[in-house]
Order: sequence, then structure tokens, then C-alpha cells
Amino acid sequence: MTIQPEELHTMDSHLEKASDTGKLYLIPAPLIPYSVENWQPARLRMSIPSANLLLLERIDHFIVESEHNAQRLLSRLLSPERMEHIGFSILNEHSSEADIAAPLALLQSGRDCAIFPDAGMPCIADPGAALVAEAHRHSIPVIPVGTDSSIILGLAASGLDGQHFRFLGYLPVDSAKMESLLASEAKSAIADRAARIFIETPYRNERTLEVCKKILPDSLTMVFAANLGTFSPCILAMPLPEWKRQKHLIPQVPAVFCFGIPAQLETMHDRRKVELAKRRLPRKK
Amino acid sequence: MTIQPEELHTMDSHLEKASDTGKLYLIPAPLIPYSVENWQPARLRMSIPSANLLLLERIDHFIVESEHNAQRLLSRLLSPERMEHIGFSILNEHSSEADIAAPLALLQSGRDCAIFPDAGMPCIADPGAALVAEAHRHSIPVIPVGTDSSIILGLAASGLDGQHFRFLGYLPVDSAKMESLLASEAKSAIADRAARIFIETPYRNERTLEVCKKILPDSLTMVFAANLGTFSPCILAMPLPEWKRQKHLIPQVPAVFCFGIPAQLETMHDRRKVELAKRRLPRKK
Repeated sequence: MTIQPEELHTMDSHLEKASDTGKLYLIPAPLIPYSVENWQPARLRMSIPSANLLLLERIDHFIVESEHNAQRLLSRLLSPERMEHIGFSILNEHSSEADIAAPLALLQSGRDCAIFPDAGMPCIADPGAALVAEAHRHSIPVIPVGTDSSIILGLAASGLDGQHFRFLGYLPVDSAKMESLLASEAKSAIADRAARIFIETPYRNERTLEVCKKILPDSLTMVFAANLGTFSPCILAMPLPEWKRQKHLIPQVPAVFCFGIPAQLETMHDRRKVELAKRRLPRKK
Repeated sequence: MTIQPEELHTMDSHLEKASDTGKLYLIPAPLIPYSVENWQPARLRMSIPSANLLLLERIDHFIVESEHNAQRLLSRLLSPERMEHIGFSILNEHSSEADIAAPLALLQSGRDCAIFPDAGMPCIADPGAALVAEAHRHSIPVIPVGTDSSIILGLAASGLDGQHFRFLGYLPVDSAKMESLLASEAKSAIADRAARIFIETPYRNERTLEVCKKILPDSLTMVFAANLGTFSPCILAMPLPEWKRQKHLIPQVPAVFCFGIPAQLETMHDRRKVELAKRRLPRKK
């Protein structure tokens, strides 16, 4: 079987069988944290592509982390009449496999649904991924649209060499385990130059920073990135010696931490040129 | 020094010093591949948040991979009069460190600039990261807005357990090195459950698929994701035995490959619950 690009979405018996099921959309929610001011409808709408707004107008069933949060957000984007037609399934850290059955049945009956989390991208370090895995098993088309990802925003803004990177999720809470993981990741970051990214519960930011200052070697650069997804983010990117010289009392807000080697054009080129030469496509990104 | 969330963007002498410089915005370009049909202005605009469109209206200097591609894209979003006021710097795989000097001088003189790549997110596996690193060294604020990332779209749509993940960039071209890397990443993916993501030059998709089928063990699921950023993506997610049973002639289009363990709610819960219990914040995401 040979597939033309324009036929991609119908490619494969795997997907063709799925034509009478609904589609599972993955729609990111704005990263802008809730406040009456921040969540003025006009302001919220400006951060969402209109294609996604149209999708929100069309879909009748949402799989959400919290009905309260989803209602609060959607009611600022949709009319009260529309809101009455919307059904919700809950999928969060308290759900069991059984909670996947209801949205799965809806999808199988032909209804389009969307996973719509509290903030950011669904299914990245998120229980929604289990429903996506189940959807694939039942040949239900999965359609991710737009990507509000604090991980990617933080990495892009870090200036670290992101040719490769590792997302470490949450670090272990146990101090000894956390220090040992940081030490080992720092060592391999120097060897493989891949940026390391992790997240932490906001009230632990300060302690995490202190442990990083203690463990990470001076040859690395560390980045603290908060207020991502707004037009006034806080990106602190400094070599470790500079972090160690100053005392920073960083705030208890959602943030992304990264460490690694700052990007250098020559180094990136050297590797890229070697690879491109091997690929015999010298001008193609 | 203690910082309140609303002061984050002015936090730190590091950033305060920067007030008379311009800002460096990181603006993603639509992932939709070029065709006359795909790039109808109304259609393009629907995929871009209006906050980003306003930013494109306001910024006079763009750091781009190719002036030709940037002109072609921007001229569909901006008026001809506006286009005449825009300056460009080129930063791509042929640039040298010297090419960073010109945009850096503009930023230092107080002018706002934007890195705007051919497609997707700037600075992720991209030479733009070197300018961002330099901006941080000169205390120039870096502001990433929106995130069209095929890596994140592909991972979200994969249904793999993305609590942790690794982006491997391009795999080595040399067959022996590629097979050995895949074998070692597959082994550690089973141990650490972190999804692995990589990209390939489109004309090599087929060969890559064949090597994956040869090397990856049957306990893993592999995902081929193409046409990302459109409403008709192609996401093929199957356990390795299923890939091996069928012959798939996948097309030569930009794509993301992932492999790993499919997400399971119970497994994600177990780890999450243990971590949350340790953090004593049982209800917070």
C-alpha cells in the first residue's frame, strides 16, 4: 500500500475502520493562570487560535480534570445556551480504568469528544494519555490541535542546546534520591549536551533551587521559567556560578526548571553539518 | 529579595538592568505545510492566536531561517505597506556566530525583535537557541509566545506514558550506530517508561520504520505521526507485533516517531499517588 500525503488521514485499514466512530480531539487550555482580570473573555480568546474556538463551539462532550475548572473556563468562551448542551466526563488522578469506559463508549457511538485539561497540553504527563492509548486500541482517530506547553515554552526560552532534551517530570521528593538523580543527570548532560527539564510543586520551588545550586556543576547553566504563556514571563537563565553568587527568593508559582549547556551556533552546526552531509540534503531543515 | 508573582517580569537586578533594551520574542510559525490552498490567509490566521497576530503587526525586525519563506508566510498575514517596514536577519545552519551580532545590536539599541522560523517552535533543535543564549548573557528579556510544536503534538497523540520523555533529535545516519542507539533506548524505555521521540528527514521515513521494526522489542508500542497541526493528522499507534504483521509504505512527509509503553491509568496513579503523598498536596495537579 502506498499513501499520498493528501490521503494520510484515511491511510491504513487501521484508520479506515474508524470512519463510523467519533473523533477524539486534544485541545490545550490556556496557560494563563486564573484571575478575574486575566480571564476576561476577550483576553482569553486572544490566546486561542480561532480554529480551536470553532472546535469548542462544535463539540458536545469534554473529558476534563475538574468539572468546576472546565465550566469556569468554557463559560467565558461559550454562550450560556451552548454550555447547557455540553456533557463532561472526569479523568484525573482519582479516576480508575472504569472511568475511561464512558467517554470511550461515546466515541464508539460516533460522537466527537475532546480532552480539555485545566491548563496546558492534554496528555503530556497527564492521565488523559490513558484514554488516548485506549482510543488507539479501538481505532478511534486522535486529533491533537494547538500546543500550549509550558515545557516547550520554557525550553525555547532557556537558550539551552535543545537538539536533544529530556523531560524528567517531577524529581523524587526524597532528598538523597533527588540529589543522586540531579548529579547523574548533570553528568550525562555534560556528555550528551541534551537539556534537562523538570517541574515541581510551586511551594517547593525554593528548596529545589537550593538543591540545584548545591548539586549542579559550575559548567552548566540553570534556568527558572515562570509566568509562561503570558506576555510578561520571568526567565532567569544564568551559569551556576552566577546563581550561587546571588540569593534568589523565587516565588511559589508554577514554573519550569531546565539545566544544560547554552546553545552555540558552531557546535550545533558541526553536528548538523555532519548529519546533513551524511543525509545528502545540505539545504533542507 | 522576595518577589510577588505580579512582579515576576521585573524581578531581579538581572532583568531590571534590561529595561532599555528591546525584547526578543519567540513566535512559532504555523506547522501547516505550504500549498496555495493550505496557506489561504483566512485559513492561516485561524491557526494563530490573535495575540500573536497583533505581535506580528507590531514588530519590525524578524530573525528567520530563510527570507524567502518568511516573506511568503508574512505577506499572507500582513499588508503590503507593513511588509515594507520589516527588516530581516538570517539565522540558519549556514550562519556563523558573527551573524548573531546584528540582531543582538538591534536588541541592545532598544528595538523589539522576533525569532520566526519556517515552521513550528523556534529554538527547539534550532539555531535560534544560540541567539537566545546570547540574549540572556546581555540581559535582554526573552518572551516565548504560543507553542506550535510537532514534538509535543506527536507525543500527546501517541497515547504513550509521557510522565517523562526523551527527545532524541535525529538518529545517527550510520546503520550500526542507529541500531545500537535504538536498542539501548528501547531497553531503558522499558525500565524507565519514558516515551522516546525522534524525527527524521522525510525521504528516510520508510527506512527508519524498517529499522524500528527490526530492532524494537514486541513489548513496546510505536507511533508514526504526520500531518500534525492540521485537522486531518495521521497517527498510527500500534504495538510492535502489529507493525511487523503488516507492511506499511509510509509517505515521505515530515513526521514524528515515538516509542514506549502505552499510558495506563493505574500505573500513572500509583507513581503519582506516591509522589503526591510525599508532597502532602493530594488534590493539586
